[in-house]
Order: sequence, then C-alpha cells, then structure tokens
Amino acid sequence: CGAAMAGWARAVRGLLLDVSGVLYDSGADGGVPIAGSAEAVRRIKASGLKLRLCTNETQTTRENFVKKLRGLGFDVSVAEVTAPAPAACHILKERGLRPHLLVHDDLVPEFAEIDKTNPNCVVLGDAAENFTYANLNEAFRLLIGMEKPVLISLGRGRYYKETDGLKLDVGAYMKALEYACDVQAEVVGKPSKRFFESALAEMGVPPEQAIMIGDDIVNDVGGAQRCGMRALQVRTGKYRPSDENHPEVKPDAYVNNLAEAVDIILQQL
Amino acid sequence: CGAAMAGWARAVRGLLLDVSGVLYDSGADGGVPIAGSAEAVRRIKASGLKLRLCTNETQTTRENFVKKLRGLGFDVSVAEVTAPAPAACHILKERGLRPHLLVHDDLVPEFAEIDKTNPNCVVLGDAAENFTYANLNEAFRLLIGMEKPVLISLGRGRYYKETDGLKLDVGAYMKALEYACDVQAEVVGKPSKRFFESALAEMGVPPEQAIMIGDDIVNDVGGAQRCGMRALQVRTGKYRPSDENHPEVKPDAYVNNLAEAVDIILQQL
Repeated sequence: CGAAMAGWARAVRGLLLDVSGVLYDSGADGGVPIAGSAEAVRRIKASGLKLRLCTNETQTTRENFVKKLRGLGFDVSVAEVTAPAPAACHILKERGLRPHLLVHDDLVPEFAEIDKTNPNCVVLGDAAENFTYANLNEAFRLLIGMEKPVLISLGRGRYYKETDGLKLDVGAYMKALEYACDVQAEVVGKPSKRFFESALAEMGVPPEQAIMIGDDIVNDVGGAQRCGMRALQVRTGKYRPSDENHPEVKPDAYVNNLAEAVDIILQQL
Repeated sequence: CGAAMAGWARAVRGLLLDVSGVLYDSGADGGVPIAGSAEAVRRIKASGLKLRLCTNETQTTRENFVKKLRGLGFDVSVAEVTAPAPAACHILKERGLRPHLLVHDDLVPEFAEIDKTNPNCVVLGDAAENFTYANLNEAFRLLIGMEKPVLISLGRGRYYKETDGLKLDVGAYMKALEYACDVQAEVVGKPSKRFFESALAEMGVPPEQAIMIGDDIVNDVGGAQRCGMRALQVRTGKYRPSDENHPEVKPDAYVNNLAEAVDIILQQL
C-alpha cells in the first residue's frame, strides 16, 4: 500500500479530511475520538501540509461543530472547515435566492444574513426531529407553488448511525420532495464537484496535489476522484468490507485509519 | 366524442369507476358529491352493466368508506369496492409475509387477520399524521435489517388536495424508503396491472368489455389502458387542462363528468 502510493503521494501539498467516521464516531453523547486521529491532525499541521475538514455536517453551525471537535482533543479551527450550509449561503446570495429552511434548529444561525422573506427556494438539511409531516407538507407546498421549483439539498446521504440506531438522512427526504414536485434537487456538499472545488480553492491547492481521506466510498472517495483528487478510504466509521467490491468506485488506497494514512503520506515527503 | 366512442362502447359489459374526483370531492368535512354522479351510479345499476369502484383510498376501511359514500347519496356496497389494503392482504397471505404497517390508524382493521409478529416486510399507506420522523425511521430500520427488504406501497401518488391544502401522498414516502434501502417498492393499487386485473376478475368481465372512468390521467387512464381496457378521463377532480397534452397517456375519450360518460355509454347499448 505504501509502495503503491509512493508515486503520487510525493506531490501532495494538502489533505482534505472527512470528519465523522475519520476523526471521531458521532453519537447523542457528543461522540468518541477514533484512536490516533487527534495526534494525526497535529502531525499533519506540523508537517506543513495544508489541512481542510470537508464535512457534510448540517446538524449544527461550524462554530459549535469545531467547539465539539476541540473538546474531543482536535486542534482545528472554524476557518479550516468546509461545510454545506456556508456553501449554500454563497449560492443563495449569488443567485438572489430567498430560502425556506427545512433544517435542524441548530443550523439556522448559519443563514442569519440571508433574506428569508417570500421564499423562492427550499433548502433541505438533515432536519432530524424537524422532519415532521407538517413541515414536509409545508416545504412541498412552497415548492409546488413556485413557477420553477428550486430545491437545494445539503448532502444526499441515505442514512447514518447514531448510538440509538440508524436514522434516515437528508437524501431520503430529498427524494420524497423530488418525486412529489417532479424536480431534481441541487446537492450542496459531498459528493458535489463544486463543493470539493471550493474546499480546494480555500486551501489554495490544485486537485492533483490534494488527497481526500474519508470513510464513505461514494460521497468521499468517489466525489473527490471525480474532481481529479486522489482519495483514500479508511477502515473506520461507516466503512464496510463490502465497500471493497463497490461496482463503480475504487479508492487509490485503503488504510486502517487516519493515523496510518498520515504515517504513509508523511513518509513519502 | 359520442360518435368516436360508438364502435367499442357497444361491447361494454362493465364499468370501473374511480371514486375521489369522480363520485365526490374529498375534504376534511367528509366531502361533497359531484353533481349528477349519484344519479349516474343509479342509472348504471338499472342498465344491467356491472359496476366496480376501483379506488386507491387507504385512509380508512372499505366499510367506513362505503358508509361515507352512502351518506353522500351513492347506492354502493362494500362488495363493489376494489381497494389496495384488501389486495395487499391477499398478497401477504399468498407469500407468507408478516407486515410492519406504516398506515393510517383507520386502515389498520383491514389487516386484522394478518400475522404481524416478527415482520418480514413493510406495508406503506397514506399514513398522514402517522408519517412522523420516528415512524419513518422505524420502518426504515426494519427494512434495512432484512436480508431481502420487501416494501409494499399502497399506491404511488405524489400528492393530493384537501380542503386545507396540498398533502404529500404515499408515493413520496415510498421514494424516501426506496432510496434509503436501495430497494424498489411493489405497488399495490392503481396503476398496477395486477390491481386492475383483480377488479376485472371480481366483476367477471374481460378487459375489452370494460371501461375505466377516472380523473387521474396516469393512475386511472394509463393504468387501465395498459390492461387492455378503454378509459375515459372526466374533467372533474384532479383533472387539469394540461392533462390533455400528456406526453404518454391519451384517454379513449374525454367527458365533462361521470353523468355525461354514463349518458353516452348508455346511448350506445
């Protein structure tokens, strides 16, 4: 594995890390760091490589997210996080869109500066308990009433695991609204190409000098590769052995965890 | 229109009627009969033509549905109704499936005789207020935990109108679960071919001697035509003028309402 990576890993100048399942395992209790990951983040920073956390987290603001990660021992800052809500705000401003938000209560502050009067689009996040029958009907009615319905979805995940079991992710509700309104959602977040490109632009690193490290074969690995990046899959988080037989996506390498990935990459430099 | 229908309408022996939007307009208050429809049902029966109500109604039992229709002045009986829940029960028994039900409370009695212990499939209806975040997660967890997930959906409607506005229909939630579990639902109800075929079998009339009358261009007209029936679209209920430009489905004739359809058909006999 180290040998196979040697050729291209030598050119690396920046690393993009998925967070949940790579740095820590999430849960109602705030989550648990994955062994060796906090130290790995410190080693990346000490090496001079650029670092970017590239996450689809939409249940809270970046500020609170970073606070939680720092509490778990990770030396990271808000300026190092690329997340769907700020990327969506950028698109909303650019296109003069005024969103109706169907998102988690804790995410709402990310949209504080956005005009939300007389909505001409719907922004859908992982709203969790806010995914009520009434709220879904309300979002649907607004969309179907628009001359050209615009549905922006913060990610397209199918489901995720919490300590109390599997939960439907935003992608399932996106599909419900897509079908009901006969529209296609615009996905902001991984695996969208534009989302990875903003993360790269924020780092100032071209795709061929960047490596994405994630646990999600489709959203992390596949998405990054389609942008011209190399991508490693860690065998932590939502990784499943069956991922290694994925019909479409093949990571540039597998690593047991973030610590091993950083070991190998730093050896090449 | 009458002239164009003459050729084939003469052979007709049975009529299948959609209910909501053809006999009456539904609403929280119980609904309002469509002018001339109650008299039209009486004329069908007096003519000797066989009659079948072919409905995707899943918010209540057939017994209560017929009770409501009788209260609105329609001379109909439970034995004349083909509805998704009884059709689903037939399939469940046939295949030894034990359902977890995500349906409207008032529909549950239709499944009284079905073994629901240790579920090996999920049956999804228009659950309305029962479409909660918790209930959707529960149905999802059961499905994803099955070796071969079986999802049976009572219809695949996108949305419908009630007096207080548009509501997402069962099809939207079906799509959410299909996506999350990477399965394809089996649809019981219109436009499923098997569903129309059971309605025909119950009437004892072959498709070429039956006419479907409905307001839904896809689920009523398109579905019936795929079974070899002729199908008329009424310009009541959810009919929209744009239906007349539907890219795939063209009714055998348009009629203003059920009363006009029955006038024309009875003239041919």
